[in-house]
Amino acid sequence: MTYCPLCSLPKENILLQTELYSLISARNVYYPGYMQLVLNDHIKEMSDLKENDALLIYETLLKLEKLIRRTFSPDKLNIASLGNMVPHLHWHIIPRYTNDRHFPNSIWGEVTNPDYLPQVAIVNQEKEFTSNLEFHLSNSSNFK
Amino acid sequence: MTYCPLCSLPKENILLQTELYSLISARNVYYPGYMQLVLNDHIKEMSDLKENDALLIYETLLKLEKLIRRTFSPDKLNIASLGNMVPHLHWHIIPRYTNDRHFPNSIWGEVTNPDYLPQVAIVNQEKEFTSNLEFHLSNSSNFK
Repeated sequence: MTYCPLCSLPKENILLQTELYSLISARNVYYPGYMQLVLNDHIKEMSDLKENDALLIYETLLKLEKLIRRTFSPDKLNIASLGNMVPHLHWHIIPRYTNDRHFPNSIWGEVTNPDYLPQVAIVNQEKEFTSNLEFHLSNSSNFK
Repeated sequence: MTYCPLCSLPKENILLQTELYSLISARNVYYPGYMQLVLNDHIKEMSDLKENDALLIYETLLKLEKLIRRTFSPDKLNIASLGNMVPHLHWHIIPRYTNDRHFPNSIWGEVTNPDYLPQVAIVNQEKEFTSNLEFHLSNSSNFK
């Protein structure tokens, strides 16, 4: 197998790790709160997952979405699993604001607001949120 | 509420409709097999769904992914819920090929292969697939 950057995540990027997945910060200066849920195993597509694992991933995505909405009050959430560049299953979870760097485009599209920088309050919220992510997730209501 | 194009889908675009969602063809000449799963109700975010509905949507996305992989043999599947332009919950399900119009970018990113046109065989497969979508979906293995 060729080198896969998601098979060897830098430890300092990992916010939380379970037997199934790792949650990492995207460390994107324009998008505080932007996280990636990365499968630990090198699996290519969502439909390759075992059913229980697929459910657990979905449950986690929904919990994260709820927590991010509550914490960052974004105008919209973007959720995507692309993997064209790195075909190792991972999800992007991105809080968006109507004045952000690419709105209303996807963050992979054209820049619309080149001068945009996120509010300091949101950057600080990210620090608190990510440092207590395990607590927040385990205290979030279960999907099932 | 302002006008929402996903609240009034043109009937001719609808491939399949249930009580919960509609499946429509994206009618994108570069991406045969590209479909959108649109909630019937004007709901903004995935985490606004009732749990049973959220499960049914996920189950349908997984089934569609499996069917699209089997039918179109794409190099990668892209799944995304953005909704920045139309904040009415919908999912993009896009079969991707390593030589397609935007690969390895998202389809909302920069064009990399401006001369690309999909193979005629794939365009024909889309016709057969979408005209029998209800049959294919109901005969696909259940997620649960």
